[in-house]
Amino acid sequence: MKAEIISTGTELLLGEITDTDASYLASQLPLLGIDLYWISQVGDNQARVVEVLQRAWQRSELILTSGGLGPTEDDLTREAIAEMLGEKLEMEPSLESGLRKRFARLGMEMPLSNLRQATIIPSAKPINNARGTAPGWWVEKDGRILVALPGPPRELQEMWQKEVQPRLRQRSTAIILSKTFKTFSLGEAAVGELVSSLLFSANPTLAVYAKADGIHLRLTTKAESQKQAERMIAEGEVSIRAVLGEYIWGADNDTLEAAVGHLLTKKGLSLAIMEDYSGGYLAASFADIPNSPTFFKGGLVTYSDAARVGFGVNAEVISQYGAVSPEVAQAMAEAVRTLLRADIGIGITGIEETPARPVGTVYIGIADDKTSRVISRPPGKQRVTTAALFELREVLIALD
Amino acid sequence: MKAEIISTGTELLLGEITDTDASYLASQLPLLGIDLYWISQVGDNQARVVEVLQRAWQRSELILTSGGLGPTEDDLTREAIAEMLGEKLEMEPSLESGLRKRFARLGMEMPLSNLRQATIIPSAKPINNARGTAPGWWVEKDGRILVALPGPPRELQEMWQKEVQPRLRQRSTAIILSKTFKTFSLGEAAVGELVSSLLFSANPTLAVYAKADGIHLRLTTKAESQKQAERMIAEGEVSIRAVLGEYIWGADNDTLEAAVGHLLTKKGLSLAIMEDYSGGYLAASFADIPNSPTFFKGGLVTYSDAARVGFGVNAEVISQYGAVSPEVAQAMAEAVRTLLRADIGIGITGIEETPARPVGTVYIGIADDKTSRVISRPPGKQRVTTAALFELREVLIALD
Repeated sequence: MKAEIISTGTELLLGEITDTDASYLASQLPLLGIDLYWISQVGDNQARVVEVLQRAWQRSELILTSGGLGPTEDDLTREAIAEMLGEKLEMEPSLESGLRKRFARLGMEMPLSNLRQATIIPSAKPINNARGTAPGWWVEKDGRILVALPGPPRELQEMWQKEVQPRLRQRSTAIILSKTFKTFSLGEAAVGELVSSLLFSANPTLAVYAKADGIHLRLTTKAESQKQAERMIAEGEVSIRAVLGEYIWGADNDTLEAAVGHLLTKKGLSLAIMEDYSGGYLAASFADIPNSPTFFKGGLVTYSDAARVGFGVNAEVISQYGAVSPEVAQAMAEAVRTLLRADIGIGITGIEETPARPVGTVYIGIADDKTSRVISRPPGKQRVTTAALFELREVLIALD
Repeated sequence: MKAEIISTGTELLLGEITDTDASYLASQLPLLGIDLYWISQVGDNQARVVEVLQRAWQRSELILTSGGLGPTEDDLTREAIAEMLGEKLEMEPSLESGLRKRFARLGMEMPLSNLRQATIIPSAKPINNARGTAPGWWVEKDGRILVALPGPPRELQEMWQKEVQPRLRQRSTAIILSKTFKTFSLGEAAVGELVSSLLFSANPTLAVYAKADGIHLRLTTKAESQKQAERMIAEGEVSIRAVLGEYIWGADNDTLEAAVGHLLTKKGLSLAIMEDYSGGYLAASFADIPNSPTFFKGGLVTYSDAARVGFGVNAEVISQYGAVSPEVAQAMAEAVRTLLRADIGIGITGIEETPARPVGTVYIGIADDKTSRVISRPPGKQRVTTAALFELREVLIALD
């Protein structure tokens, strides 16, 4: 089934909001084996909405619209669908009484403008909206399906999950399954060349993306059954791991901090962090991992030499080498490790580029009970956090 | 000037990423007085990209594309533009040598596939990419402008700011100027009612948005000169401040943490933080403020009672009231204030909702040398961070 998404709303074209409705619906369609070919955003202008709907009606079998079902004059989706299909809007008594009951329940008088939400065309069936006043529409005509959904994300997602997805699932015959592999230390082109023999297959397909935490590969397969799809993904994974195995640090929703947390837990090791330059970014990256209290002994954000010395960094090391130095990064790692009785300590110190100092540098020190190492990186708080996590991961893998 | 945005990338159609490039560009165009009519997303399929480009070339005067300029086989924007315009891709020696130099500087060998990024068509001029290997394209032909931008947001935004926006500004005759006012403690409907007399003006326009850090109002004006636009904005600001002045905490790019940092600096006060629940989020929120070392004495992330006690929290308070209690939040605030010799201390302790414990709670304690106060909030790390900043702001304003 060839699908298309149309989002309406002038606020999208002014860049005031990002179209998360479209990305939500797009992420849902593969689970039903439905291929999405086009997404478009169009403003609250009836002629332009009709034009986009007409093109969609010609080229797609399933059209999902979001937005434009509200009660005000700039909510035009109902009118545009009616015009595109050459049908007339009529008041639907059951929708009208439903709206009146809803307002009565809230003890409010219904503004007259809400009556627009009770109009519908003959070939559309209303879809219940559990979270708002705008009913959706399910239109089936000429072998095509058009589903009009409300714009507010929580209304749209609830209507999708409860009403639309179950109906579409009944008609779907294919399964689309994906798996993402996350690599580090290679560039996009290098990864692309290593897997070039796999890149041109039509099913499964393999795509390469550059992300903040390294290069990702996405393997996608289309099959007639879940079982067959899983087998194809497993076979593809063997081929990918054969060439990239040592560079892969995670899959799908794995995050680098969760992967590091998993390694720490598995090895029964604990961690402590003292940050200057990154100001709490590294500590905060562990905050969303549910079991982080079991391995994360604590983090210190220290912007002053006094605070560093107060937490056990040798004042002489600071005065001899300067606060931004490999020696101080190492001393911070060792001090926080000792202070918080952790197995591994990380110390980060650094300085931004400024017009007066064109090259900034950040030092990341990692210490355990036997050794310590320091790496340097260019500034950038998020990048430095990622670099520290990758380095910690290497230290943990090497430890045995 | 009638503009259109086309974003390419199969990951957009699989819902793996949301198209923030389109919303960024959409938010920039009004500043140049350029009207945006269409946005579309299309997958990495040359025929479909060409079809979308052809339609854009017919109906729009300015076309902005994002994505598809990478080095791999699924980066098709160059090929698609060439096909749409009936031109041939040729190797551009200056681009090739630039790429080779870039890789040499990094001490890496250039993969052959990167050479694709050195190809261009005769009617395109390359646009420098300060943050990546993919040059952009500036195409001018038949009275139309097409600008091809790289997909990674930091590359796209830098190229837009440094290269594209200045060139477009030269051609623009209208000025659109906006100012955003950020309020707190009022709901969207209440703000809307207070400014209702201003809401229906055609120029300037006023729009109301609910955001994570409160309700924002955006005042936008279109004028023939910068001076005229500035005067209209200044007049509108007077009207807005007349009704909302006491609720406005910032404007435009002001962040709550910068506003708080400004108040701390102005009053000559310093801050220290001990976080359990929020795990470094609050400390990290100050990391991007350039002068934070002058007022931020340090942050501690403590997940264990032992760590809290080690930093000066009274063990008896923890055992008597439990780690998640107003008393412990207050004790943490007072302990970190004393330990790091700060004027104001903040302590945050809390617990998430779980199936077994349906109501989570977070306590935020704020202490100075005379008094302390504790507020409670529902869980949510970002929301708790915002609540702590608003509360600190109130404390600072009340202090004199």
